[in-house]
Parts: sequence; C-alpha cells; structure tokens
Amino acid sequence: MDLLQISNNLQKNLEALHPYTSTPGAGTTRLPFTTEARSAVDAIRGMMEETGLSVREDEAGNIMGTLKGEDPSLASLVIGSHFDTVSNGGNFDGLAGIMTGIEVARLIKESGVTLKRNLVIAGFHDEEGMRFGTGYFGSKALLGQVSQEDLHSYKDRNDISIYDAMKTYGLVPENLPKAAWDIKKIRAYIEMHIEQGPVLYQSHEEIGLVECIVGIQRYIITVQGRSDHAGTTPMDMRIDAMETAAQVIAKLPAWAREIGEGTVATTGFIKATPGGMNIVAGEVQFSVDVRSRNNGIINEIIEKIRWELDEACKKNGASFTMENKLTISPVELNRNMLFTLEQHCKDRGYSFRRMASGAGHDALAIGHVLDTVMVFVPSKDGRSHCPEEWTEYRDIAKSVVIIYDLIRDMQVV
Amino acid sequence: MDLLQISNNLQKNLEALHPYTSTPGAGTTRLPFTTEARSAVDAIRGMMEETGLSVREDEAGNIMGTLKGEDPSLASLVIGSHFDTVSNGGNFDGLAGIMTGIEVARLIKESGVTLKRNLVIAGFHDEEGMRFGTGYFGSKALLGQVSQEDLHSYKDRNDISIYDAMKTYGLVPENLPKAAWDIKKIRAYIEMHIEQGPVLYQSHEEIGLVECIVGIQRYIITVQGRSDHAGTTPMDMRIDAMETAAQVIAKLPAWAREIGEGTVATTGFIKATPGGMNIVAGEVQFSVDVRSRNNGIINEIIEKIRWELDEACKKNGASFTMENKLTISPVELNRNMLFTLEQHCKDRGYSFRRMASGAGHDALAIGHVLDTVMVFVPSKDGRSHCPEEWTEYRDIAKSVVIIYDLIRDMQVV
Repeated sequence: MDLLQISNNLQKNLEALHPYTSTPGAGTTRLPFTTEARSAVDAIRGMMEETGLSVREDEAGNIMGTLKGEDPSLASLVIGSHFDTVSNGGNFDGLAGIMTGIEVARLIKESGVTLKRNLVIAGFHDEEGMRFGTGYFGSKALLGQVSQEDLHSYKDRNDISIYDAMKTYGLVPENLPKAAWDIKKIRAYIEMHIEQGPVLYQSHEEIGLVECIVGIQRYIITVQGRSDHAGTTPMDMRIDAMETAAQVIAKLPAWAREIGEGTVATTGFIKATPGGMNIVAGEVQFSVDVRSRNNGIINEIIEKIRWELDEACKKNGASFTMENKLTISPVELNRNMLFTLEQHCKDRGYSFRRMASGAGHDALAIGHVLDTVMVFVPSKDGRSHCPEEWTEYRDIAKSVVIIYDLIRDMQVV
Repeated sequence: MDLLQISNNLQKNLEALHPYTSTPGAGTTRLPFTTEARSAVDAIRGMMEETGLSVREDEAGNIMGTLKGEDPSLASLVIGSHFDTVSNGGNFDGLAGIMTGIEVARLIKESGVTLKRNLVIAGFHDEEGMRFGTGYFGSKALLGQVSQEDLHSYKDRNDISIYDAMKTYGLVPENLPKAAWDIKKIRAYIEMHIEQGPVLYQSHEEIGLVECIVGIQRYIITVQGRSDHAGTTPMDMRIDAMETAAQVIAKLPAWAREIGEGTVATTGFIKATPGGMNIVAGEVQFSVDVRSRNNGIINEIIEKIRWELDEACKKNGASFTMENKLTISPVELNRNMLFTLEQHCKDRGYSFRRMASGAGHDALAIGHVLDTVMVFVPSKDGRSHCPEEWTEYRDIAKSVVIIYDLIRDMQVV
C-alpha cells in the first residue's frame, strides 16, 4: 500500500472543497440546500466519475457513486458520510469519510480486484441539522424515514421549510420517497469519521474501532421560583430558582464520574430570568445532556436529577418541569466487522483502540436498521466543529487501508 | 390627627403625578432630565407653593420647598426622597417620601406650631441611576459629591451625557457646585420610603424604623474552563466551567442563612459560553450580590467564595477572576431619632419594627455624612419597581404623623 499516495489524494480532494463555504476565512459553513452544498456535490461528482464510479444524485440530494460488482443479486456495501457542516466548522467532519470511500474505490479499481457486490460511496446531505434544527436527513431519507410532513414542519431561521429549500436547490420534494432503498439491498454500512474528541490524540493511537454509538437524553429543565429584590427580601422569604438549579447542576458531573463506563453529563446552557444582578432569579432554565452506551445508566441519572430537584423544591417552594428535547437509544455496531477491522489493524501494524462514539453520525440512524461499523481517526487536540479542526492525512489514509481490506473480505459473506 | 384627611391629601398628590410617565399603561417611567421629570417638578412646585413653602429648584434639578423657622442661625431639618423612577416602575417608590414631607409641612402650618428651625422638603433628582448607570445624583449634588467630570463621563444608551441632558433640561451644568450645601446648615435628614420588600406586609406591622442601610459588595465572577464537545469528551478530560461555577452558586445562599443577622446573598445573573446544549461550557460568568449591616460578614462571605472557587479550580484546572462592580459600606442611622420615632409609634398606637434597609436610598448617600433616619411603610406583597407596586395611603399617613411628631421634637435639640 502506498500510504503517501493515498494521503496525497485525500489532501487534494479535501482541499478541493475548501472554497465551498459561505464564511471564507472563518471556517467551513456549508449548510444544506445552499449554493455551497451544490458546488460541493458537483465537485464530489467529478471525483467519483474520475474514479470510475457511476454517479447519481438521489431525490434527497445525496450523491451516490457505485462501483459495479459481478453479481447484481448480492446486497451492496455502502461507505459514506456527509458533506454538510455546522456554521464555522472544519473541513474534515463528514467530508473526510466521503473522501475515504472514494479512495477505497480507487484502490480496488487500481488493484485490479473484481468485486462481487456493488460498492456504493455515499455523500449524505444534512447530517448536522444546523439549518433546520433536525439532522440525519440524507441517511434517514435512504431508510425511508423522512415524511412529506417533515419537509414542511422543519424551517430555518428565515422561515424557509426543507420543502422550499429543496425546490430552490433543484430537487422535487414530492419525489423524496424514491431516495429510499429496499434495505435488503444493503449488506452493511461503513463510516469513517474524525473522532471529534481527545481520546485517540492523547493516547497516540492511530485508529478507533467504534463498538457503539452512545444513547442520548437531553432535557430543558425549568425551575420556577419567585423574582424578588435581592436586597430587601430576607433569605427565608425567597424562592430562589438559581439556588435550586445550581444544586443539581453542581452534582450532575459527579454522578456521571461515579457511574463511569464512559458516561458523560453536561449542562451547557443556562438562563436566569429576569437576569439582573440585584434580582432574585424567578426562573432558571438549563440543559442537561446525558450520554452512555447503557440506556439504563442514562435513565438512572435522569431519575437522580428528578429526585434531587424534587427534594430541593420541597425545601424552598419552587417547582420544576423537565422537557425532553432528544432521546436516542444507543446503537451497538457490528461485532464481526469490528473483529475483521481489528485483525487488519494488527496485520498492518496500526495501533488502535475499541471505543464508543459520544457523538451521533449517519451511522447512528443507519445502525439502528443495518449492520454498521465505524472507524475513527485522531482529531488534533480533540477539537472539531471549529476552523481549527485538523486530522493528519496519513491517519485518514490508514483508515482507507483497513476499510479496503474489509471490503475485500466482505465479497462472499 | 385626621388620618383620613392626610390619606386623602397623599392620594390626591400622588395621583396628580400619574400622567408624568413615558410609558402610559405600563407603569411609571420618569427618567431624569426628561420632559416627564420637568412636568413632575412643576407639579411638585405647585403643591409646595400651595402649602406655603418657598420653593427653589436647585442647580442639580432638585426641588426644595422651605418652611421658614424663627431662628435662621439654627441648622435645617430636611425631609426628602426622589421623584425619578426606574423603567416601568410604580408611583410610590421615592415620590411617596416627597409627598410625606409636604404633608408634614402642611400639618405644621395648619396646627399653628411655630418652628425654630427651617424645615426643608427635598425632591431629589435621579436617585435610581436608571438612565446614566449611576444614582444618588441629586442627594450627592447636595453634599457636593458630583464633579464636572462625572457630568461628562456618565452617558445614557443614546450616548447623551449628564452634562448634555442637563442643558437640554434647562439647567446650567457649570453651576452644579451651587447646589451643594454647607453641611453644618443641615441638622438632620429624614426619609420616608416604601419598604420594597415583604417584611412589614407579611408581619402586618405599620411602620418600619430603619436602623441601618446594609452594605453591598457585588462582583462579576468569570470561571474559565475549556469548551469541548459534550459527547466526545470524557469526564476526566474536561474543564467544565459550569460545574465549578455551580458548586459556588449552590452554596452561597446557605452561607448567608448560616451567618444570619439579615445577611442576604444572591446570584441573579449567569451566562454560559458558548451556551450550546451539547457543548461543555468554556466560560461561565455570574454575579454575586452580598448585603449585610455588618461589613465583616460581607467580607467573610466574599472570602468563602474565593476559597471555594480556588478549591474547585485546583481539582479541574479551571481558573477564575472576580471583578468588583460595587462596594457600599453599611450606614448606621441615628439612634436618638430612632428612639424618638419609636416613642411616637407607641404613643400613637402604631405597630412597628426596627429593621434594616436592604436597598440603597438617598438616605444612604446622606447618612454617611449627616444624622439621618428612615421610616418604612409596607409594600403590598413586597413588590416594587413594577407597575403593581402599591402601598396603602393610610399607612403612609401614619408615617406622616410620626415624622410630624419628630420634627416638633427637634426644634431645640
């Protein structure tokens, strides 16, 4: 394997998409159904065609390049990721996985290997959900999980629906069901993604073999107290929503650490109303985001939060509500593919670790339905979703090699 | 004493100022050096003249009505409060104290008592500090504590300085020093104010005798952690600014309760950056406002906060800064006047309690320099700085009576 050649190809292809951002000089912003997305799709189409794939843009705006196998009756293997980004994000999140797929196809083509199964390289549209507040749009469309109602109900901040955005983009929203595959026609889904966390980078390991994608429960909790003058209201006459909220927020990370098993818990958002320095907070809203590969642990922490709030409110007369904003079940990824990838890491001499993915990916939506595996490569300083996002091309190249190995192995099973 | 007559006069005078708001239908908004302030001053001048006072608007825009005493060599007694309001405030905060003074003068005049000392009824300008972010403007001008530099450095949100606002209002800013009194010419300052808190209302007491105005220390604390992905960053690789901040915020009210003596501590403002539900907070800013009649207690709590932040930061690698936004020393009010007022409450059969003022007033600025006393009357539900602010006229009338008694007593001492 010529790792240098693979690295150079990856670099050339990834850099070719640098111009397609609406925020030049301030990271990559490639929101779905925009002219930047259109330019990116056109560029990816060119790369796929140059590699000898038959290319089709589907009815969801996904771009799919197929390397034909000998036996059309066999289910396809799909390697994919997404080409949209968050606002002011990086050039690797998503895109690196598509470019990995294209490199795998090129290696197979150039090695003279004949595939039995079709190999499909998928570039998914709107995984991040940045524009419409949803996400996994392209991969869910592939699974037939996006309804016509969804197209109308999700809107961007300019009140443009997905439906209208698709039309402006040149798609026919009514044709969306045609993007759905018969899932029996897909043997497995493989996704390479940058880790977006610090684990591989800090441990100096080259490959992450993702055993599972964690489940998430996210809530907005509202504590209702009473707004009073901070000077004239004695402590025993207050219903201080901030005190109640802080008691829970302060304990949440410790609960996650105690339970362990990679469980994480975060309060990233908080708002006190009315918010004056000299006014007791009448209302405090805050977020909790709890993730674990074990759904039982997530439920246990959510119950601890509820219990703690109950106790605190009993003491001072406050009340609270918990609004569920997101519930995702954990997904266990395919053990056989993981085992095969592990063997290839050993054979190739690449260091690796088995790990969980703490972030969602197209593999999350797909992994609930199909045999799925993910490969991670290190993110410099663990940073992602920012202009500084960086992964070494030679690290991505190693993922290309082991996925190439996996694809070859999976022709007959 | 005809309490009903006093109540009716107070109601008539207070209601006469209802129209002078820039937010009709949404509470009273009478910011300093506006047409609403001008109309209010003109109306108060009329009431003072009708009561037989010699009226002068001073160079700070304070309105001063004097009932002449027999002996011009004796220092004056001043009864006052302010006529400006916060935005969308009520009709009692400040104004009720001026109307109380006018009623006291009327009672003295009508009772045929001859005063030895001059009695001055003062309507102060810009106590709230709402427009220019300062406060106690009129009372500080009386004390000679406002400099020409202050007039230029404090500006409103339209970038208009106090200097320019004064000129538009019809004052000559350069003449401001003429508003200052020789403080030897003032024997004592007496202020009636609505309580703005729930203590008297809940205890059904009629009069609050204010022994002190609490000291305040206010800080903005900034905890610096590191912003990370809430899913992909393991708990032991985070520097979660929110966790550190919450540990202090959660304990602060308990510290105030433990120390007691009416100490209050509040976090009313908080901001997490970047603020996303799925992002570990890289920075959390929050306010602490600590008030007590004992400066040592305030310092003790501030030191506890610093120590707790230090400990929390040692554990997770965060850092913090504490920016002092306000430091006010407590003021002990005059014991002799308090004792006299207490005797008159007993004689008149009014229920009363001695208490601290948790809010600042013109009496705070003046009390640092002159013999000062304050009288509180109950605020319905403890509410103030809102359109619902309400105090019964008959309660204000009782304060008129005991202050009338006090003024009579203070002619010779």
